[in-house]
Amino acid sequence: MEQELPIFESVFSVDCVIFGFEEGVLKVLLIERNEPPFKDWWALPGYLVEPNEGIDEAAQRILFKFTGLKDIFLEQLYTFGDVDRHPQGRLITIAYYAMMRLNGKKDLKPSSAFVKKAFWCPVSDVPQLAFDHTQIFEKSLQKIRRKISYSPIAFELLPEKFTLTQLQNLYEAILNKKLDKRNFRKKMLNYGILKELNEKQQGVSYRAAAYYKFDRRKYNKLFQKELSFMKEDDAGH
Amino acid sequence: MEQELPIFESVFSVDCVIFGFEEGVLKVLLIERNEPPFKDWWALPGYLVEPNEGIDEAAQRILFKFTGLKDIFLEQLYTFGDVDRHPQGRLITIAYYAMMRLNGKKDLKPSSAFVKKAFWCPVSDVPQLAFDHTQIFEKSLQKIRRKISYSPIAFELLPEKFTLTQLQNLYEAILNKKLDKRNFRKKMLNYGILKELNEKQQGVSYRAAAYYKFDRRKYNKLFQKELSFMKEDDAGH
Repeated sequence: MEQELPIFESVFSVDCVIFGFEEGVLKVLLIERNEPPFKDWWALPGYLVEPNEGIDEAAQRILFKFTGLKDIFLEQLYTFGDVDRHPQGRLITIAYYAMMRLNGKKDLKPSSAFVKKAFWCPVSDVPQLAFDHTQIFEKSLQKIRRKISYSPIAFELLPEKFTLTQLQNLYEAILNKKLDKRNFRKKMLNYGILKELNEKQQGVSYRAAAYYKFDRRKYNKLFQKELSFMKEDDAGH
Repeated sequence: MEQELPIFESVFSVDCVIFGFEEGVLKVLLIERNEPPFKDWWALPGYLVEPNEGIDEAAQRILFKFTGLKDIFLEQLYTFGDVDRHPQGRLITIAYYAMMRLNGKKDLKPSSAFVKKAFWCPVSDVPQLAFDHTQIFEKSLQKIRRKISYSPIAFELLPEKFTLTQLQNLYEAILNKKLDKRNFRKKMLNYGILKELNEKQQGVSYRAAAYYKFDRRKYNKLFQKELSFMKEDDAGH
């Protein structure tokens, strides 16, 4: 006879690490918690997943409820499952991350009593966060630091037209280090993936800098031909 | 007064996708299940995590118990959490993956009554697996396909000395497509990361091929200088 199988009930959470870039500063989206545990602490937006909810779906729902942001392209980062990461027992959490360009228009409107406020915090000013959120935040930072070295995410964070100084500021903000200006420009221009526009900054008191655009077509070609060790599509007949 | 907080109890599992390469064939480690649900089905080695066990630790323990393999370098791949992925209720699973060179000496010795047998199955022969394991397996395959194009994992799967034919066989096995021999060799040799040894195949009836070694030092240098878009360590002063 077939044995009776137990029914599993599982409680787990999702947390979202959303990076935004604005005027040379890399920021992360935080909330101030309104409920115990860690009441009044700053934390990543995150909460329990409903029993009948997919995990990607839960991440979108909770991010919207806690911050007002919606339709963000969230990618799964990592699952954190240390035995003692949560004071209320064994609770694993699936972390998601995203990067976005901030343009001043990104109003944050939490609609959950769980959240006192949601705000963008400069990455360099992030204090100790609730639970293991500091660890989750740092792992996400490492992820985007690696990613910026092999993918063109930088250009998704800048306005369509940008100066080389703005581009360098972004790399410096993500890598958290000063880069040599001459080397940086030489290297960036050598790739041939930036298109200089016939247009300069307006209304600046210093020498106006030229605007550039990212040339995605060239990037894709270069990436396929040179930057990739053995691309699948490039290796064939 | 501080409110009483509920205590969470969480049940979840880990699954391991272990790839092995042997004589030109890419294989994946499977078990035959001895218990319901999916009794007698083939599946990835995986089981429930203990309440007081870290998730990385659980993956190692279960892999050892189910297959006899130990001290494998497991990396977290992805967490699968579809609402209906498990017939016994909501059960999310954290998938890990690893790649290894098989040398005939990798005896598989399950020590769990849960497992009828463990075995290496050629990737091209994998049938429909239990639960959503087919989906997990396919996502892992995609992962190593992407990874082989930007990292030197191929050389970890080959013997220290290898012929260009062996190298091509490996790429073909992972990418699941035939590659043009002339293009492949030209490209591989052009990178300058292979060192030709003063040594040829012995005891073969056909024309003996030269052996090569992977030059990791050169690879690292090349990767830093050319293959990387803007490496952190290369961007500075």
